[in-house]
Amino acid sequence: MNSANPQPAQASRLDVMNFLNEIAGKFPAAISFASGRPAEQFFHFEQMLARVSVYVQQFAQERQLSMDSAFKVLAQYGRTNGIINDLIARQVQADEQITCSAAQVLVTGGCQEAMDLLVTTLCNQPGDVVLVRSPCYIGITGVADLNRIPLVPFSCDDVNQAASALRAAVDAAKQKGQRPRVLYLVPEFDNPTGTVLPLAARREIIAFCAEQGITILEDNPYGMFRFEGETMPPMYALDQHACVVYLGTYSKTICPALRVGFAIVPEHLHGVPQAGAALLDKLSQAKSFIAVNTSQLTQAVVGALLLDENCSLAKRVAPAVALYKHNRDVMLASLAREFAHLRDQVSWNVPEGGFFLTVTLPFPFLQREAEICASEYGVLTMPLSFFALDEQQNYRVRLAFSNASTERIEEGVARLARFVNASLPRS
Amino acid sequence: MNSANPQPAQASRLDVMNFLNEIAGKFPAAISFASGRPAEQFFHFEQMLARVSVYVQQFAQERQLSMDSAFKVLAQYGRTNGIINDLIARQVQADEQITCSAAQVLVTGGCQEAMDLLVTTLCNQPGDVVLVRSPCYIGITGVADLNRIPLVPFSCDDVNQAASALRAAVDAAKQKGQRPRVLYLVPEFDNPTGTVLPLAARREIIAFCAEQGITILEDNPYGMFRFEGETMPPMYALDQHACVVYLGTYSKTICPALRVGFAIVPEHLHGVPQAGAALLDKLSQAKSFIAVNTSQLTQAVVGALLLDENCSLAKRVAPAVALYKHNRDVMLASLAREFAHLRDQVSWNVPEGGFFLTVTLPFPFLQREAEICASEYGVLTMPLSFFALDEQQNYRVRLAFSNASTERIEEGVARLARFVNASLPRS
Repeated sequence: MNSANPQPAQASRLDVMNFLNEIAGKFPAAISFASGRPAEQFFHFEQMLARVSVYVQQFAQERQLSMDSAFKVLAQYGRTNGIINDLIARQVQADEQITCSAAQVLVTGGCQEAMDLLVTTLCNQPGDVVLVRSPCYIGITGVADLNRIPLVPFSCDDVNQAASALRAAVDAAKQKGQRPRVLYLVPEFDNPTGTVLPLAARREIIAFCAEQGITILEDNPYGMFRFEGETMPPMYALDQHACVVYLGTYSKTICPALRVGFAIVPEHLHGVPQAGAALLDKLSQAKSFIAVNTSQLTQAVVGALLLDENCSLAKRVAPAVALYKHNRDVMLASLAREFAHLRDQVSWNVPEGGFFLTVTLPFPFLQREAEICASEYGVLTMPLSFFALDEQQNYRVRLAFSNASTERIEEGVARLARFVNASLPRS
Repeated sequence: MNSANPQPAQASRLDVMNFLNEIAGKFPAAISFASGRPAEQFFHFEQMLARVSVYVQQFAQERQLSMDSAFKVLAQYGRTNGIINDLIARQVQADEQITCSAAQVLVTGGCQEAMDLLVTTLCNQPGDVVLVRSPCYIGITGVADLNRIPLVPFSCDDVNQAASALRAAVDAAKQKGQRPRVLYLVPEFDNPTGTVLPLAARREIIAFCAEQGITILEDNPYGMFRFEGETMPPMYALDQHACVVYLGTYSKTICPALRVGFAIVPEHLHGVPQAGAALLDKLSQAKSFIAVNTSQLTQAVVGALLLDENCSLAKRVAPAVALYKHNRDVMLASLAREFAHLRDQVSWNVPEGGFFLTVTLPFPFLQREAEICASEYGVLTMPLSFFALDEQQNYRVRLAFSNASTERIEEGVARLARFVNASLPRS
């Protein structure tokens, strides 16, 4: 929204999606660890459609309409901020320890729309910048690049140091005359690295952002996919300064085709009475010119499912959590087996949940290497440099284990190992 | 997308939607001619959902998938540009005389998303401006205002003079150093006035825009709702210079809750080989960061209906066309009856189709007058000044006849007449 110079990496960052699509199209038989899609065996699309009347019934009752009238009202244009806000508020209470009212919820066309609305609404003056961890999910860097809002990255391979890395980045930005307005974070099993931000770091970051007037956008698509270890409260639940806006999506817990996500805005944002409602008004106005409103059909499908599940998705996602854990274990075992002879040169993290892990190699793994892996070894991966805003991720690669069979994970890791073996500098 | 100064009217234009919602909420018992909603008696939401497998079947066949796999693939993330592009191309051929390939079609989350994508993508340099008729649909002025892209209005109460009014506006803008990049037009039964751009004016405007390198965004939500008179080819079909991008929506022909619209981009935009594909790539990239992709559920519902109707909606909308014509006739008769004693002071147009007509009064009708009509007379209307970018529409009011019963149209016009009688300057 402002005309500060785009950063040099802008074009290449915007092209990551293209690369992914093109390479997947060119090598359809390759084993893909590239795209972090949810496992579709748990989608029950046809059954979900057949249940939509469960929501329509409640909609009709609340408004004292006949079922026929309720269907007709739902088929019309609707409230910009959404109609299933109360059910979403109940679901995040049950599943995410988040307490909020329906009025604090903005329903969006997937979480991507929420990111776009929040970043463009909060960063609307020249000099306003968005803070991100590097490496970072491209959904947020894409929004900033498209709208020419500068990104200020900070690195924290040691997540315990996240707050001090953030503080240094903010200091440097302010010295350059920039105004950090927004911090985007995926505290649970982030994309691309799969790491978790520790409790202490969450608290430090909240305190620092509250002090600085920075709004935290907490994106939590993977939080319900924890395999082990202690559940961590989202930053929204920890926040006593009302500086965290929570972003959610039903793309992973229900299915992506619905394009239903949401934002939850604190009532007294940054401690200012009614500031949350004022921000929601602005978001709503912007949304009316991007989308008019989120499809009431897709909202009704989500609403019916939430009613069927008594507003908790924990039971419904349990089989997917078990599958993703199994997939992660297969991938870890395959990595241990295939790289047994290289344990001093090749390493990886062990995520306690989510869809991704990262492997660190003894040589740079960039777009060229990803293309060779695809074309000569039949395995698709994502170099972490695609997600990076600095040069520090050039030796790392993201592997998604969410949507591949046991056999293909084993074979895909073996193919990656063959590439690594062939690429190692001869000693 | 650029930081030129917002125009003075910006805030008030952005607030029109709020006004409409607030006033409708405050006076729920009032008769509304304010909102141009389609008549919902022709929505068959539940039946449409039950037919979705018609599309899934075709999707499965084309990709050699089982029905179960097809449902699962559809539930996933999907192609940014959409999946029902071929069916849309067939529908616009059958219903709108538009010849295009599936590759030229971008499926969008309602037509509003198409407007946002096109305006922000085409106007991406400081000095780029959007040309609009005044009065103008607020969906487009809202996009420009939100993105701080200046609007250059031109007035043409005599639609035969549209091309020369446009030419004068372009000349003036260029003298100020502005670069007109986009012209937004609703040639058929425009919102808010309900007028039609004559064939000669369409041709003159196309020739002028081709010469100037201006891209015309032709928005056609009401084209299928013609009551009488000769069908006019859309500007896209007349265009021999490849300077018209066609915008369509299924919100009026099927129902708004689907949020499915589209843009059709000429292959050799402005005569440049492959320029259409290059623009589509940019739109697609921008779309991936606003929406990821349009819901494959809502696309499947539209796809099934198009297959059921053999890709023409003419038969399906016929009952709605008959109703809108009836409503218009009732409104015209009511106006003639209620304002019989004021025919020298109160006038209105006779639209040959669409959802709206405009009444010209002998005194200013602005927000205050609309509020009095709502609160004291129980009738909701939209002052044309809400849609204006100049002061020339202050005596006019928009009446939507698309979604009211015969009795309520008669009574609503009578209420408006009572207000006018009471407000006339005593002579």
